[in-house]
Amino acid sequence: MLNYDDTICAPATSVGTGAISIIRLSGPESLRIVDEVVEFRNGSASSAEGYSVKYGSIPSVDDVLVSIFRAPHSYTGEDSAEISCHASAYIVSRILELLIAAGARSAGPGEFTRRAFVNGKMDLAQAEAVSDVIASGSEAAHRVALNQLRGKYSTELKELRDQLVQLSSLLELELDFSEEDVEFADRAKLGALLDETSAHIGRLCDSFRMGNAIRKGVPVAIVGAVNAGKSTLLNALLGEERAIVSDIPGTTRDTVEEVMTIGGVQFRFIDTAGMRETSDEIERIGVERSLQSLDRAEVVLLVLDSTAPLEELSAIYDDVRRWVSPSRHLIVLANKADMAAGRVPFCDLEISARTGDGLEALKSRIAALYDAGALSPDQTLVTNLRHYEALTAARRDLEAVRTGLSIGLTPDLLAEDLRSAIRNLGTIFGEITTDEVLGSIFERFCIGK
Amino acid sequence: MLNYDDTICAPATSVGTGAISIIRLSGPESLRIVDEVVEFRNGSASSAEGYSVKYGSIPSVDDVLVSIFRAPHSYTGEDSAEISCHASAYIVSRILELLIAAGARSAGPGEFTRRAFVNGKMDLAQAEAVSDVIASGSEAAHRVALNQLRGKYSTELKELRDQLVQLSSLLELELDFSEEDVEFADRAKLGALLDETSAHIGRLCDSFRMGNAIRKGVPVAIVGAVNAGKSTLLNALLGEERAIVSDIPGTTRDTVEEVMTIGGVQFRFIDTAGMRETSDEIERIGVERSLQSLDRAEVVLLVLDSTAPLEELSAIYDDVRRWVSPSRHLIVLANKADMAAGRVPFCDLEISARTGDGLEALKSRIAALYDAGALSPDQTLVTNLRHYEALTAARRDLEAVRTGLSIGLTPDLLAEDLRSAIRNLGTIFGEITTDEVLGSIFERFCIGK
Repeated sequence: MLNYDDTICAPATSVGTGAISIIRLSGPESLRIVDEVVEFRNGSASSAEGYSVKYGSIPSVDDVLVSIFRAPHSYTGEDSAEISCHASAYIVSRILELLIAAGARSAGPGEFTRRAFVNGKMDLAQAEAVSDVIASGSEAAHRVALNQLRGKYSTELKELRDQLVQLSSLLELELDFSEEDVEFADRAKLGALLDETSAHIGRLCDSFRMGNAIRKGVPVAIVGAVNAGKSTLLNALLGEERAIVSDIPGTTRDTVEEVMTIGGVQFRFIDTAGMRETSDEIERIGVERSLQSLDRAEVVLLVLDSTAPLEELSAIYDDVRRWVSPSRHLIVLANKADMAAGRVPFCDLEISARTGDGLEALKSRIAALYDAGALSPDQTLVTNLRHYEALTAARRDLEAVRTGLSIGLTPDLLAEDLRSAIRNLGTIFGEITTDEVLGSIFERFCIGK
Repeated sequence: MLNYDDTICAPATSVGTGAISIIRLSGPESLRIVDEVVEFRNGSASSAEGYSVKYGSIPSVDDVLVSIFRAPHSYTGEDSAEISCHASAYIVSRILELLIAAGARSAGPGEFTRRAFVNGKMDLAQAEAVSDVIASGSEAAHRVALNQLRGKYSTELKELRDQLVQLSSLLELELDFSEEDVEFADRAKLGALLDETSAHIGRLCDSFRMGNAIRKGVPVAIVGAVNAGKSTLLNALLGEERAIVSDIPGTTRDTVEEVMTIGGVQFRFIDTAGMRETSDEIERIGVERSLQSLDRAEVVLLVLDSTAPLEELSAIYDDVRRWVSPSRHLIVLANKADMAAGRVPFCDLEISARTGDGLEALKSRIAALYDAGALSPDQTLVTNLRHYEALTAARRDLEAVRTGLSIGLTPDLLAEDLRSAIRNLGTIFGEITTDEVLGSIFERFCIGK
């Protein structure tokens, strides 16, 4: 295990409209540096117990509260301190200057969490979950990230890895006695265990699409002819959501896409701008153009104008159906049902975006596709591309073992593929890792994490 | 002294790009509510000592650190807790929901600081300084606010008040014996003391213009003809400043005005947009138009093109001088001195915005107008309009006493004016106050302060 010999500092809160800012320090010199910068009325940070708070003063800068943590009982596993000051950019920068003058170094992105990983406070999958927990914008995304942060996810993967290690050790044993041509491992039992583990890894791989959708929000395209009522539908759906205004200062919303939460899952509505520009052209052309946005969508809402000629609607429907891959969800909506009900035989739902009729049914339908409630709390979802790739590689390794087993390959060759699968799983929680991998993971973090 | 019987909660940090968010709780039920919401591994918040930190878990929400403070040793003087969680808007809102469900109430703007005032942890002037400390964008503004927060400002005003109380008690004593026509107070000595106190209050009143400029930033107008080089000058001045990019996440800059710090004081450059629109018109008209922006400026930089006909420059100079009140600072700059030096007899400084010549001299000149270094650390500046008004009223009261004294007014009338002056000073630190006054002060705070 590496040990860092320098002490890092960074602001841990954003300076916005808050009352308090926190500056973090971690490393062997943390408490000495705090004592150099902060004047305490009684005692010093160096002599204080872990998990205690001291009130002190930084001359001509601010009065502060300092929380003290002692190795290994801290986030990073090192001696650490959190300085709580008034939420002023001026004060925060002055305190950072003083800390740096006293021997601290400005932390890089994700450096606190990287130290927590290197010091064994969390595995790599947990460290990655820190960012996800912070970024989670919905209940489902938050739950998935929290399970990963709390180690539930790693535990499941480690159990899988342990199963493979067991299989491997059986094969390795044979290898040791290979000249005697002994078969310790029951080939049928080996195959069954392999299938079971393989299937488990397969389920995890398959969960990535759902997991990723939940983590990043499910992309939804609303398509349809120009006057079918797409915008009215979007506004009607968002209407309620918009009313739930967050009280939390500094919350920012992505302005490029409209986002709403249905049943605890976040849905991102893709702007089908192609449709809007074609008001002067034939409606069919508009539909064709917006079809390209379907590639990015997990859910496609096709809005049809119930009052339009059925022939036309049918043509649009055929086009869209041809473009939407079977693995995506297409929901066909007969809009303006208040004016012309029961006219579209191939629709899934009749709605009226104008009156609001059918919108609750539509929401239920969308929510059912990503039933966050049903997933929870036991199903593990893979949300991280790096993990997905590692799992896919492990799955391929296990397939190779299975094939090898069925064609009677020698134990040494089987063992090699098995070891590769174990290695691949191990990269997820960081058993085997390189500085380069760590760099690419933590550089995506913000400073102060 | 009032006592609040409810417990308030609010986020104390802004949710931006940070790693940590803090939620504050204050009131008699704080620790019970924390125990209801957070599961601790050992012990409870209610049984924990003040100034200690406990690690706990909020089921399916987050793992948190809770700092515990016990009355009266907390910011508000009440039992308090600070919950430190991951900086996610979702987590913060879930925790607030849980706290409210357990019996807390969402805090109003400035309610924590208001409680600190009501519970005698700080006086009103100190409470008002909390916002100023947070908003301070420069060293000088910060120092003035910090002095006020730390009570130095209040101490000086209380000493003044005490002097007036002494004077008053002498007069009151005479009142008790008024039928006997005794004069306890030496009129000459009374007058001298009055003059001294009056002069002190007068100095404080006079400091408001400087104090307010330092607190809010000094408004500077750069005026001049269209091609005189105003923009080049602004860019040259800001050039260096812009290079000092803040590392602190969430720092926002006012985009309407350009701001820079010279000698620890913040200067806000007013956009003289009127000038820019007139490139097709006669230069004189442009100057006339921008003259209206001079009303808001404390400092006016008149930029003249040294290469232009002297007659024209002289006309512009006369116009601007007529508009700039004598109490403002006008600095006349002969720009493009690299091409035509020594041509403008009435200029204060020759500069070249293009080559940078003379810019340091200009900065020194500006800095000298608001010499923050020379002010510090002993001079008290009034930065708050409410205080300025109270001081002005007290000054008027004392003038009335002085006049009364000189025309031999009876002690009862003198005493009344003196009591009014004492009352007026008392409103500054909140000795005498109403719910209405408190409301108007604290409603300007953010929630969480």
